[in-house]
Amino acid sequence: MLRVAVVGATGYAGAELVRILTGHPAVKLTAITSRQYAGVRFDHVFPSMAGHVDLVCEDLSIENLCDRADLFFLSVPHKIPMEIVPGLISKGKKVIDLSADFRFRDSETYEAYYQPHSSKNLLEKAVYGLSEIYHDKIKGADLIGNPGCYPTSVLLPLIPLLKEGFLEAESIIADSKSGVSGAGRSLALTSHFCEVNESFKAYKVAAHRHNPEIEEVISRETGSTTLITFVPHLVPMTRGMLTTIYARLKADISSEDITKSLLSFYSGRPFIRLCDDIRLPDTKHVTGTNYCDIGFRIDKRTRCLILISAIDNLVKGAAGQAVQNMNIMFGYEETAGLKSVPYPL
Amino acid sequence: MLRVAVVGATGYAGAELVRILTGHPAVKLTAITSRQYAGVRFDHVFPSMAGHVDLVCEDLSIENLCDRADLFFLSVPHKIPMEIVPGLISKGKKVIDLSADFRFRDSETYEAYYQPHSSKNLLEKAVYGLSEIYHDKIKGADLIGNPGCYPTSVLLPLIPLLKEGFLEAESIIADSKSGVSGAGRSLALTSHFCEVNESFKAYKVAAHRHNPEIEEVISRETGSTTLITFVPHLVPMTRGMLTTIYARLKADISSEDITKSLLSFYSGRPFIRLCDDIRLPDTKHVTGTNYCDIGFRIDKRTRCLILISAIDNLVKGAAGQAVQNMNIMFGYEETAGLKSVPYPL
Amino acid sequence: MLRVAVVGATGYAGAELVRILTGHPAVKLTAITSRQYAGVRFDHVFPSMAGHVDLVCEDLSIENLCDRADLFFLSVPHKIPMEIVPGLISKGKKVIDLSADFRFRDSETYEAYYQPHSSKNLLEKAVYGLSEIYHDKIKGADLIGNPGCYPTSVLLPLIPLLKEGFLEAESIIADSKSGVSGAGRSLALTSHFCEVNESFKAYKVAAHRHNPEIEEVISRETGSTTLITFVPHLVPMTRGMLTTIYARLKADISSEDITKSLLSFYSGRPFIRLCDDIRLPDTKHVTGTNYCDIGFRIDKRTRCLILISAIDNLVKGAAGQAVQNMNIMFGYEETAGLKSVPYPL
Amino acid sequence: MLRVAVVGATGYAGAELVRILTGHPAVKLTAITSRQYAGVRFDHVFPSMAGHVDLVCEDLSIENLCDRADLFFLSVPHKIPMEIVPGLISKGKKVIDLSADFRFRDSETYEAYYQPHSSKNLLEKAVYGLSEIYHDKIKGADLIGNPGCYPTSVLLPLIPLLKEGFLEAESIIADSKSGVSGAGRSLALTSHFCEVNESFKAYKVAAHRHNPEIEEVISRETGSTTLITFVPHLVPMTRGMLTTIYARLKADISSEDITKSLLSFYSGRPFIRLCDDIRLPDTKHVTGTNYCDIGFRIDKRTRCLILISAIDNLVKGAAGQAVQNMNIMFGYEETAGLKSVPYPL
Repeated sequence: MLRVAVVGATGYAGAELVRILTGHPAVKLTAITSRQYAGVRFDHVFPSMAGHVDLVCEDLSIENLCDRADLFFLSVPHKIPMEIVPGLISKGKKVIDLSADFRFRDSETYEAYYQPHSSKNLLEKAVYGLSEIYHDKIKGADLIGNPGCYPTSVLLPLIPLLKEGFLEAESIIADSKSGVSGAGRSLALTSHFCEVNESFKAYKVAAHRHNPEIEEVISRETGSTTLITFVPHLVPMTRGMLTTIYARLKADISSEDITKSLLSFYSGRPFIRLCDDIRLPDTKHVTGTNYCDIGFRIDKRTRCLILISAIDNLVKGAAGQAVQNMNIMFGYEETAGLKSVPYPL
Repeated sequence: MLRVAVVGATGYAGAELVRILTGHPAVKLTAITSRQYAGVRFDHVFPSMAGHVDLVCEDLSIENLCDRADLFFLSVPHKIPMEIVPGLISKGKKVIDLSADFRFRDSETYEAYYQPHSSKNLLEKAVYGLSEIYHDKIKGADLIGNPGCYPTSVLLPLIPLLKEGFLEAESIIADSKSGVSGAGRSLALTSHFCEVNESFKAYKVAAHRHNPEIEEVISRETGSTTLITFVPHLVPMTRGMLTTIYARLKADISSEDITKSLLSFYSGRPFIRLCDDIRLPDTKHVTGTNYCDIGFRIDKRTRCLILISAIDNLVKGAAGQAVQNMNIMFGYEETAGLKSVPYPL
Repeated sequence: MLRVAVVGATGYAGAELVRILTGHPAVKLTAITSRQYAGVRFDHVFPSMAGHVDLVCEDLSIENLCDRADLFFLSVPHKIPMEIVPGLISKGKKVIDLSADFRFRDSETYEAYYQPHSSKNLLEKAVYGLSEIYHDKIKGADLIGNPGCYPTSVLLPLIPLLKEGFLEAESIIADSKSGVSGAGRSLALTSHFCEVNESFKAYKVAAHRHNPEIEEVISRETGSTTLITFVPHLVPMTRGMLTTIYARLKADISSEDITKSLLSFYSGRPFIRLCDDIRLPDTKHVTGTNYCDIGFRIDKRTRCLILISAIDNLVKGAAGQAVQNMNIMFGYEETAGLKSVPYPL
Repeated sequence: MLRVAVVGATGYAGAELVRILTGHPAVKLTAITSRQYAGVRFDHVFPSMAGHVDLVCEDLSIENLCDRADLFFLSVPHKIPMEIVPGLISKGKKVIDLSADFRFRDSETYEAYYQPHSSKNLLEKAVYGLSEIYHDKIKGADLIGNPGCYPTSVLLPLIPLLKEGFLEAESIIADSKSGVSGAGRSLALTSHFCEVNESFKAYKVAAHRHNPEIEEVISRETGSTTLITFVPHLVPMTRGMLTTIYARLKADISSEDITKSLLSFYSGRPFIRLCDDIRLPDTKHVTGTNYCDIGFRIDKRTRCLILISAIDNLVKGAAGQAVQNMNIMFGYEETAGLKSVPYPL
């Protein structure tokens, strides 16, 4: 059994990691940390898991943790990972970091949007953990920068079509809508029930940190600097993210071309489901799962492709993709721990 | 007191009409109809209004109703209005129709998206009731085609900037999000609680009937045929509509230009509120009101203007705008019946 | 115009006071305070009210406020009112306090559940502001202890029947369910969207501070010490409170007796609506209103009366009842400022 | 592998059966029926399950189904099961019926609340499938009357304490609150999103068919006819049921007595979780699981025990308990197919 630890286990993504890893057939969860709940049983923080998890949250101490796990999931705010990852890597540990610290190859972009980076030398070593796209690199990686939820929902539908050259790359707009769990468990008026319930709004319009993350990946994959317009919105529901992407199609690209391209690109990838002519992605269809559902329509009059993806922001958008990356790194079945039958409602 | 009747009073827009008209200082609601609830007291259908409305729903019979009201609000499915409006108009009645039957000037467009039109001769006479834009024509009108909720949310922010020539008109995308009441009170799986709750999805992608309605108005106002890409989405909440519009700015248009243009265009219009640099429209801020809140941001890197509007789909998107149009037609204060202080949450 | 001030205007009950008072025909809102938002425009805190309220929040300073208002609404946490009320009363001001500080006649009960009381001498002077029950005393009062939301929902349906001697008083159970706004605007995990949404639970079981408040009033009204079992629950919705009361009926009390008693007791009271055989109270029917809807059923087999009330916890349960009390104190129409037609949904 | 069929697979309980059985290690789901969706792939009705279930819904025809399964789950409205069960039993099939048809031993009670029973002779043979209580009888059963969701939530916490003689049996009140999925997938105004959302109400007060079901079981277990007062309420959420039970404690029964009794009675039962002094049951803690969480408090002043249970109405309240019963009948591990780690939120 692979011994794994979750650093930052009592945030929403961390708790999802605990849930998935507890049910994973090939790993043993040996340690969990939480600044806020150190000394408290995990199932006192998340009582749903009583009878499933008997771990006690610990303070974060690498010395203390280091010998007890082979793989570390970091689910703490950016800046902390860049401080502890060097120590872990130097001791031969593997790391999957869910923060932004190791997502960028270009440290200048990172520093423009976050803060000075204290472990730049590791950026080269880090692999961007968008599982379906960087599968081969993930296999050999020691350090994964696990993607943001918005980038996952934008990049998965978009990359195959951009690589095919089907789209006018300068025209891309991504209008994303996220459930409230994306804002985390930290208290804030913007996550206060009465402020969010029965409300819909945009936020950080064309100013979200996931924007440069998306652009760096797209630019790398297409080989030329590409900008996109990205606007996130908040939906009054707990889980789920839907992204509606708009892009001008190049002449003569048909619906069949797009279907064929997506099917071929994602052939054999267990977590991508292409919707047919009848149905379109709905966040309810992916709740609690690691799926990314993709669908599209074409407005022929305007040659605009409308490309839609749905994910569970906490699973494919965070913890599930992290476990998928672990499965790839360690040669487990890619779906191990992630196969439970989805709920009908 | 002006005597008014509401035809189709037990749908959601109809019930909102009853609510607003009951509190209106200058009118007396004399008759309401409902196919489904004929013979039933209105406050048995909507018990919240017990003590405020003591009318009984009647079957729709123009002969029966004609002498009892001077103005008729029609809140029934399209096709019915085109059948009864000629009779009403010929008897000198005024009509505000909330269906699509009298929204189009071009009957071919109507017939392409709805069905054959049996009262084409009245289309010329009808005024499109987008109050802030067609104020002067509404004043003298006998027949109003009250706008759809989506067109209201798209057109109000967009028209001033299009008329200024600030936007590349062929680039416009409108990504709209509506609360579930927009789908009405008729039973459907797509409005069934467990199917909608904790779900977010797009529907009728680039295929919604409000698309040609928007385009006809834009084309008329700009003087050239203009297409837009329009995608509606369903939000798990009762009321509210937010539209995010994307358009390429022509060179050198600044944020100040846009603010100035919107402020000037809507100067003195009581139901348009322009958001400042700090806040953005939120459906919660307009719930139960006739306001259209408008805000915007510019992504300077892509020269993309992101223009956002929020309305209550049942008020400014339907019943409230209908009453506003009545106020304009009959020379009442434009805000009469529509001034109650909004709820903080 | 009566000049009024709201102390604590940016909590939910305070903001409701601002909303109602702004629309009140006989008063002028001259000052509002907020510790957290001092110096900030009220409509920046609650943007829905832009265009309706142009006041700026101030720090709480009695000297500063005293000459600017004749009546003070206090919507701040208990303990603060007992410190500032003596000063206000001594200057001839009238006060309606929404905290618990002046709800109890028995200071020992207050001190057992809250903290030492520094203005005990004013307790005698204070009138418990349950408008329908203490109408006559409220008329002449200078200081109102405005009731808690739960006590309002329990006492209004219960008192008439207890006074008639219909119920076995030692058998009473009140099972209450409240929307989340009852917990206020202060940040807490228990009001965090993802924790509350899609969740239902009891809290403070038989340990809520509103329990002794209910018991003191019942005991006073019935003339003998009466205990009740009271359990509050949290409903995933913003506004509304439903209370289900269970009590053993004395022999031979019929459904007609109860209807007659309630109708007679509340005859002429504008905010009590008795539901008939067909419908039962529903929080949706009273949202945004000052109504208390009351309905009941009898389980004849067990002689158990099931008595149900619905109120909006922020209106009849707080701000609305406070304004109703003001209306009674100052001789305005009892419904002034509280008459707007309820929403159908 | 045991071959199983689900009759009525496209209602909510039926779909949950499909979900659980698809993930069950010991069974093969061979046929599903649906009147409404005959001929349609199951994953077109419930797209979340695409990739997991490839069955097509069939019309209900016992001849057609009989040879294809050994065990039949019936998830159709009452009256249908009583018509088809005799044929299945006579062919040696086993049946778990989720309707009310085989829940009662006393056919008169059934007929008083439902309709004439056409298979009374099978009532004796049928076992009431409250797994924890009738475990031993379920083992040898051919026909299970699977309990209603409300009875499950009331009986599990209550039976141990009634059998101990701790409670004054004539004083029991059960105040239950259910998520909307309990009302099923059939269209009805009472499940229409805008009618239910932001609403809380009681329904079928002291008149619900689950009332006699509860009473029959309690009377059987205590050996004397016992009536309870039962009031169900509707919560604006999809899944979950919380029941608050009130009962007068006999003299000298302490909190420790109750804890000890519950712990001992449910010792070794994997799906009962007793909450401690700190936490109380919350529907969120059991969502998607087969758990019944039980907690309690005592109001010492009134000697009232407040006993609280939480279940997922579709799992322990329907499909999960049905599978648990199958596990018991066929000697599988009791938790087989029901062990997935619960979601933290």
